[in-house]
Amino acid sequence: MPLYFIGLGLSNEKDISINGLEAVKKCDIVYLENYTSILNCKKEDLEKLYAKAKNVAFLVIGDPFAATTHIDLFLRAKKEGIKCNVVHNASIASAVGITGLQVYKFGKITSIPLENENIETPYDVLKGNLSLGSHTLFLLDLNPDEEKFMSVNDAIRYLLKVELKRNERIFSEKTLCVGCARIGSESQVIKAGSAKDLLKFNFGKPVHCLIVPGKLHFMEEGALELYS
Amino acid sequence: MPLYFIGLGLSNEKDISINGLEAVKKCDIVYLENYTSILNCKKEDLEKLYAKAKNVAFLVIGDPFAATTHIDLFLRAKKEGIKCNVVHNASIASAVGITGLQVYKFGKITSIPLENENIETPYDVLKGNLSLGSHTLFLLDLNPDEEKFMSVNDAIRYLLKVELKRNERIFSEKTLCVGCARIGSESQVIKAGSAKDLLKFNFGKPVHCLIVPGKLHFMEEGALELYS
Repeated sequence: MPLYFIGLGLSNEKDISINGLEAVKKCDIVYLENYTSILNCKKEDLEKLYAKAKNVAFLVIGDPFAATTHIDLFLRAKKEGIKCNVVHNASIASAVGITGLQVYKFGKITSIPLENENIETPYDVLKGNLSLGSHTLFLLDLNPDEEKFMSVNDAIRYLLKVELKRNERIFSEKTLCVGCARIGSESQVIKAGSAKDLLKFNFGKPVHCLIVPGKLHFMEEGALELYS
Repeated sequence: MPLYFIGLGLSNEKDISINGLEAVKKCDIVYLENYTSILNCKKEDLEKLYAKAKNVAFLVIGDPFAATTHIDLFLRAKKEGIKCNVVHNASIASAVGITGLQVYKFGKITSIPLENENIETPYDVLKGNLSLGSHTLFLLDLNPDEEKFMSVNDAIRYLLKVELKRNERIFSEKTLCVGCARIGSESQVIKAGSAKDLLKFNFGKPVHCLIVPGKLHFMEEGALELYS
């Protein structure tokens, strides 16, 4: 009896693959991991679509191993000799291609935590990526229990604040940014513009992410114009 | 009538999502893009699963926009005012998380073409990524029509050859590599070891990819031990 790791994709209950759904239906015990992202449907919508046998499934929004915590569980299960089946799915790491920025040209991904008073890692990741002309994807923290989430606007304010402290001319109000909300859902919003302009824009409900592009190919420039 | 861009995921006909399948079933005309990757099922298996109405679908292995050519089509359609619907799916860019290497820590992705006589870009991308401690994913070219594909072994030989020419101590027989074949399919193979060791290993059928890790976290080291 394998342990199943099943990606749910990015938006609603029907983003699960047919392989994923068939795997869930073989399982008695199904865990849903919903502390690193938010689905655009209710847990009850998932339950309605799934029906039950004799395995354990671990459902993860996006791709099961795009975040670090789940690979740990997978490796521990493997070490104990438990057979694992994995059903991959869409992840924000590749879905950002919808912005027209080339997925190949993204550098390290970084997260901005809600509690970021003394944290400068995201700024350092941006600095490193820019040195190679790579794009930077900032994943924005959320705390569903407390209904707190970081918006694109919060992320821009955070980067401006660190810039003020570090003064290394990595990020300014003029920096071209791409703000994204609810990528992969019907209510998806993508907006390109200067940091200053995006600060005024309301992206609506979570999950948000921010991209700071590196060196742009003319095709990427053309794409961003469509979103500006 | 929107134009649909539908990701097929990484392995067989059942890796399409339920949203994806429902979209295909609304379409009269369905195009399958199969020159940038290979599915582990026949076109007939897809046809059997799909049934037909009055739209156009463009099916792409993996995620529809992880490769550059498809976003171009999407943007051209948008410019012409054609409504586009996108169904994301798993991409190799995030599925590599199964190796235990953190998806966040990958730098730019690069492709090694079959015809690579005077091409050094992949080496330069590796060099840049290593300077930041980032992991490098090499996608390996294939030509399904001519049944040619680049193996992990070919890729290692290519990097050794460029190193011999450039002599910048970026890649050697001792470099730790992770060779992957058919990620996301049941016959998936992942093998970690020195370039020299992996050169002797037979990864079997395509699609292959090669990862050269950057700076490793101890959890990543532990994961790679399981694959060595």
